[in-house]
Amino acid sequence: MGEKLVLAYSGGLDTSIILKWLSEKGYDITAYLADVGQEEDFKAAKEKALLLGASKVYIEDLKKEFVQEYIFKALKANCIYEGNYLLGTSLARPLIAKKQVEIARKEGAKILSHGATGKGNDQVRFELTYLALMPEAKIIAPWKEKEFIDKFKGRQDMIKYAEEKGIPIPVTQKKPYSTDENLMHTSFESGILEDPATAPDDAMFKKAIVPQNAKDSETKLEIVFEKGIPVLVNDLSNAKKISGALEIVKHLNKIGGENGVGIVDMVENRFVGIKSRGVYETPGGTILLKAHRDLEGLTLDREVSHLKDMLMPKISELIYNGFWFSPEMEFLNAAIEKSQEHVNGTVKMTLYKGNAIITGRSSADSLYSQKQSSMDEEGGFNQQDSKGFIKINAIRLQAHQKREQK
Amino acid sequence: MGEKLVLAYSGGLDTSIILKWLSEKGYDITAYLADVGQEEDFKAAKEKALLLGASKVYIEDLKKEFVQEYIFKALKANCIYEGNYLLGTSLARPLIAKKQVEIARKEGAKILSHGATGKGNDQVRFELTYLALMPEAKIIAPWKEKEFIDKFKGRQDMIKYAEEKGIPIPVTQKKPYSTDENLMHTSFESGILEDPATAPDDAMFKKAIVPQNAKDSETKLEIVFEKGIPVLVNDLSNAKKISGALEIVKHLNKIGGENGVGIVDMVENRFVGIKSRGVYETPGGTILLKAHRDLEGLTLDREVSHLKDMLMPKISELIYNGFWFSPEMEFLNAAIEKSQEHVNGTVKMTLYKGNAIITGRSSADSLYSQKQSSMDEEGGFNQQDSKGFIKINAIRLQAHQKREQK
Amino acid sequence: MGEKLVLAYSGGLDTSIILKWLSEKGYDITAYLADVGQEEDFKAAKEKALLLGASKVYIEDLKKEFVQEYIFKALKANCIYEGNYLLGTSLARPLIAKKQVEIARKEGAKILSHGATGKGNDQVRFELTYLALMPEAKIIAPWKEKEFIDKFKGRQDMIKYAEEKGIPIPVTQKKPYSTDENLMHTSFESGILEDPATAPDDAMFKKAIVPQNAKDSETKLEIVFEKGIPVLVNDLSNAKKISGALEIVKHLNKIGGENGVGIVDMVENRFVGIKSRGVYETPGGTILLKAHRDLEGLTLDREVSHLKDMLMPKISELIYNGFWFSPEMEFLNAAIEKSQEHVNGTVKMTLYKGNAIITGRSSADSLYSQKQSSMDEEGGFNQQDSKGFIKINAIRLQAHQKREQK
Amino acid sequence: MGEKLVLAYSGGLDTSIILKWLSEKGYDITAYLADVGQEEDFKAAKEKALLLGASKVYIEDLKKEFVQEYIFKALKANCIYEGNYLLGTSLARPLIAKKQVEIARKEGAKILSHGATGKGNDQVRFELTYLALMPEAKIIAPWKEKEFIDKFKGRQDMIKYAEEKGIPIPVTQKKPYSTDENLMHTSFESGILEDPATAPDDAMFKKAIVPQNAKDSETKLEIVFEKGIPVLVNDLSNAKKISGALEIVKHLNKIGGENGVGIVDMVENRFVGIKSRGVYETPGGTILLKAHRDLEGLTLDREVSHLKDMLMPKISELIYNGFWFSPEMEFLNAAIEKSQEHVNGTVKMTLYKGNAIITGRSSADSLYSQKQSSMDEEGGFNQQDSKGFIKINAIRLQAHQKREQK
Repeated sequence: MGEKLVLAYSGGLDTSIILKWLSEKGYDITAYLADVGQEEDFKAAKEKALLLGASKVYIEDLKKEFVQEYIFKALKANCIYEGNYLLGTSLARPLIAKKQVEIARKEGAKILSHGATGKGNDQVRFELTYLALMPEAKIIAPWKEKEFIDKFKGRQDMIKYAEEKGIPIPVTQKKPYSTDENLMHTSFESGILEDPATAPDDAMFKKAIVPQNAKDSETKLEIVFEKGIPVLVNDLSNAKKISGALEIVKHLNKIGGENGVGIVDMVENRFVGIKSRGVYETPGGTILLKAHRDLEGLTLDREVSHLKDMLMPKISELIYNGFWFSPEMEFLNAAIEKSQEHVNGTVKMTLYKGNAIITGRSSADSLYSQKQSSMDEEGGFNQQDSKGFIKINAIRLQAHQKREQK
Repeated sequence: MGEKLVLAYSGGLDTSIILKWLSEKGYDITAYLADVGQEEDFKAAKEKALLLGASKVYIEDLKKEFVQEYIFKALKANCIYEGNYLLGTSLARPLIAKKQVEIARKEGAKILSHGATGKGNDQVRFELTYLALMPEAKIIAPWKEKEFIDKFKGRQDMIKYAEEKGIPIPVTQKKPYSTDENLMHTSFESGILEDPATAPDDAMFKKAIVPQNAKDSETKLEIVFEKGIPVLVNDLSNAKKISGALEIVKHLNKIGGENGVGIVDMVENRFVGIKSRGVYETPGGTILLKAHRDLEGLTLDREVSHLKDMLMPKISELIYNGFWFSPEMEFLNAAIEKSQEHVNGTVKMTLYKGNAIITGRSSADSLYSQKQSSMDEEGGFNQQDSKGFIKINAIRLQAHQKREQK
Repeated sequence: MGEKLVLAYSGGLDTSIILKWLSEKGYDITAYLADVGQEEDFKAAKEKALLLGASKVYIEDLKKEFVQEYIFKALKANCIYEGNYLLGTSLARPLIAKKQVEIARKEGAKILSHGATGKGNDQVRFELTYLALMPEAKIIAPWKEKEFIDKFKGRQDMIKYAEEKGIPIPVTQKKPYSTDENLMHTSFESGILEDPATAPDDAMFKKAIVPQNAKDSETKLEIVFEKGIPVLVNDLSNAKKISGALEIVKHLNKIGGENGVGIVDMVENRFVGIKSRGVYETPGGTILLKAHRDLEGLTLDREVSHLKDMLMPKISELIYNGFWFSPEMEFLNAAIEKSQEHVNGTVKMTLYKGNAIITGRSSADSLYSQKQSSMDEEGGFNQQDSKGFIKINAIRLQAHQKREQK
Repeated sequence: MGEKLVLAYSGGLDTSIILKWLSEKGYDITAYLADVGQEEDFKAAKEKALLLGASKVYIEDLKKEFVQEYIFKALKANCIYEGNYLLGTSLARPLIAKKQVEIARKEGAKILSHGATGKGNDQVRFELTYLALMPEAKIIAPWKEKEFIDKFKGRQDMIKYAEEKGIPIPVTQKKPYSTDENLMHTSFESGILEDPATAPDDAMFKKAIVPQNAKDSETKLEIVFEKGIPVLVNDLSNAKKISGALEIVKHLNKIGGENGVGIVDMVENRFVGIKSRGVYETPGGTILLKAHRDLEGLTLDREVSHLKDMLMPKISELIYNGFWFSPEMEFLNAAIEKSQEHVNGTVKMTLYKGNAIITGRSSADSLYSQKQSSMDEEGGFNQQDSKGFIKINAIRLQAHQKREQK
């Protein structure tokens, strides 16, 4: 029997071919399929993997861990990459790869393999996680192997190989773009989306309806947070109370999607130095981010909030670039965790045709004081103090100006 | 004749009373009314000021300067305070105060006065600008003067004084909140808005209709940018081409408002250390910010973009806190200006019920390469290079992990 | 009996006069003298305070807490203000003020008082700490009270008052500058030092000899760190091993001072907006900072180290400005603490005439690999990987250049 | 004739062998030798290059450009990498590579070659510059070519090849470490320095004497800056006035070196992810950095200074990592340039046995006001303003504490 290898297997044509190809090269293959909330017939995928030569198949349900340890950690930091992208794929990859390493350890395998290409971000996220957690890992990424690339120059070569090898070819027409799907989002890129001047087709979306086609009624809800994490959703329009991390995200995806919330279209910067056009739908994540940020307005100290705003792009960049498991993430996360101690309270929202509208917020840990804020009463604030405050703040500006005037 | 004083006069009840009060204290008052795009009967305001004792009245049309030198500078930096506020009032104040200083210089006045209270941000923005540009200025801010505050403890005192002194009292019912209006936005705060748990009334808004009440049809448009600044709006739905800084902002306000774009509701942190609930409508600014950011995705280098993202909160904080005229703003703006050299191109958008949807972008200065980005061709990108790229990036992660495993 | 008040009392002329003045105003005064390592006859100071009207005197030995909870926390972050100042006074003030609040709580006093002036940083550090820990505190700072300032316009007024009231006047000639002394440093400012063009007198220094007058022999030592904190000093030249936080700092002050280490002279920026000339001697602190930073070179991940470098000026600014007890310090310190987990090891140094020279370092937690670093062997590093690494890093630079060339 | 290639040639054994090896592979080689201030017999090097097969030799005097456009730019930003390294080599590499690209353009060559290894930083600095300025460049780095590495496994292989090919072998014993020398510094690494626990030999240094062996007398001097750049050195001890960028650096190297200034020993983080031990001597640069920073204390606004402190580590990292020619450097440099407008004035220093002691500073552009700073007079500063200043600053700390107490 050959060297042991664990392959991150998706069930699709690419990784099926890779499985077969690796199998023919003599590897003893454990196929591993991560369930992070994507639509998939896991049973069929398992059978196919075994058929194609896998000696063992793992199907791992990572959904709950994905929400609690990945999505919610990014939420605490209000992560958003380049102003738009909520990092749905970026957050799932390190978890998928971490579990793959665990399987490799259990199986005594030293080789890890994946089906990501050499131009994208996912290869980086997979491989940095492999090496960060299993420094001695050997990696086989067929799409970066000359022999493999030479063999499979286009889709026709793959179909031909599949036919020869008895690999089932999906009956559905290949979509004119690539997608990645998980609990947090669906991403769309490549193919017809490669022209950044052209809008995507409204029918492309899976989790969300475009605002123009969304239902005419509003959905009203409340989200309750504890230490920066949603613990309860009160769906007022549907008279449902949802708790549990996974259930909350699923429900927000549902009602967010119906209301057309969370579609973005952008040109983004990949870690490998090229620009790429990405379209994303992240209904639940968008609602949560908006609500979380709003609650921080009520409960977080100003300077902590501004430090978070300055560090957020860095944290998002680290996640995007695949450095989830890194000393710098541990460093920054220690601060983020500290900041969430008092982010408790309830945010009220209305979802309506693409909008996630904040309609109120309250917290037992509020730092807001109506009396202090009010223009109608002193509220413990001596307005004359502001005179000195401003004068002292102006001193260096005055010195600067006096020099300019010389 | 008394000491010369220039008063930032709005025409409303507060600054009318202040004008009269200062006049009775014997100051030689120049009333100054800045036109930054608010709704106002400037002629009537002028007459009222003269009636109340102003020896001279200036009405300054600052609209164009406001757009070109303030709104567009913030746009270049993608400024947004605490994730939501587009700084409409914060941007107008330094301009208003700068012109007031110029008038003071022309009139030989040493005293500057304004009607902002001691709890808010505007006092800071006025006074820091006064002192930054005219270090020798003396400031009279009646709402921070004991004598004035003792005299005017509530609205009743003000109405009584107005009646005694023949100050016209607005016939319209006082609104149950305060507003500030200019070309960029209308702000709403105080009064019934002081309860952050309660949503504002849909009827409150002036520039924008709430998404729920917005028109059913879309508005499609294109915005052309040169060096980070909009130079043309092609309103496809209304078959109009608009150029000119001021005209562009006005038109975007109009179509943005009709489509319910740009309303935000937040709890924010004032520079004086208190939290405050603010509601804003910024239709045109919201559209421009979204379009500008999108075009930067296509035309800006990744690292410049990420540096801008890190510095943006700082720049926004400086604007919010009244440090528009400061050496640190000059320092940061030098970098921002540099970054905009290639931010040229066209962004296509659809406005619809609160959404400003990007539907495409193009630029002769694009850094995006379809070939390079494509998953279907090499496009000058050797995917095998990624192997070394990732391995080298992993080296310190591996070292970290090896130590952890010890 | 009057209202209870706790005065931060130094034993010197200023706070003696303040004590008497407050006493005559009828306050029931608890004098509180903090021992942070300064030279002082605490017994005599106590007697003097009682003589001048204090109803109670606290003398608090804060030395150990100062080292462990303040000096070492700043050390972990490599704090240095504006490139030079090691924050000796800034670190002591919050501790002194915190203990004062504790005494006020114990004594049931609501009023806190100190002798710092209105132009300096110490007033801010005292008062921000008072209010941060005891929000309801009332503060009396006589040097900002009109009545007090009017009475004491110059030193002559103070001496006259002292003579009238029987306040002992120090027999020693008043020094032509001010100093503040504690375990970490002595600061010198004001008086003849106010001319930034003139060097201080060599004889002024207390803890350190200027390099030109330092002894001719070297002192060799080793410092052992655990989790970023020094736990052992091996003084090789004097054949002594010193452990214990307080003893380590004292010993490093002694040998550092003999070798002329740690004198700086700078123009710095005070929080109140004015520039100030300060001269400092920080022998032990300088040695520790240099050693700590060096050990981080060996044991800290690069990206963590660079994040620390970016945040260090902010942390130092917060300490300098009196925000030791603030949510933003808690936020940043959480990250700093995390970073120190592996900062273990030994640094070898030679002290000689102003120099603290690193002569070697070692650590069981080293991230340095001689094999990997070596130019003479592969050491697990495939140099060909660098090709791809550089090419991928160059991609966006090439795109930028191609656009420039158009 | 073969393909044209420009080789960065040093005259040493490595690049001589590379020249010969490339020549034998049939390339038409232009050897290029940059004079950045290193000790070198350029005439002999030229003859050797021609002898070894170069068809043409360029010797470029880059000294003045190096000082004015590279060293001084870094000085303006107070650049220092990881707290210690003044970036001497990092600053020279992009200039050397830029000129190499210019020669390639002139000669019509498409291929650029250098002798740096695959583990170090210099390969990155060379190649990123090549590709940033000449995106179409082809690069041959023999130390990363399998064929070359296989052939030259150790020094013995190189000597054997040199003997076979008639390449002159330096008669001097190879030093047990590597060095790089230019006007700014000499670096020492590798070989016996690879053990970070062992101090370097005192005799190793070229530009500076170790403090212990430095002369017993002081050197007093004044440095005059204009817009952040030194324009005059007044060497008081030697009664010389030196002007001219290049002459200033040379003179400061001389007197700095005699006084033992500017030696550092550190473990640093390379861009390729490995830690490396480096020893550097930078006498003139150290003096200039210290003087420049000091003058900024007098002439720079506080907030600009603090922003520079925050950005400095990033700028230094970019320089270290080879991103001198990059959009992000242009972005940051625009701000740095702006900041230097008023950095004019004179700094007085004393050099003595490793110390560069500031003894005074003055400037017609000073922002320091003795009156304002003085504790003995009001100086236009109303100390009572500080009350309000502190109270307002404390408001959010009080709110935070009140919540904690709940």
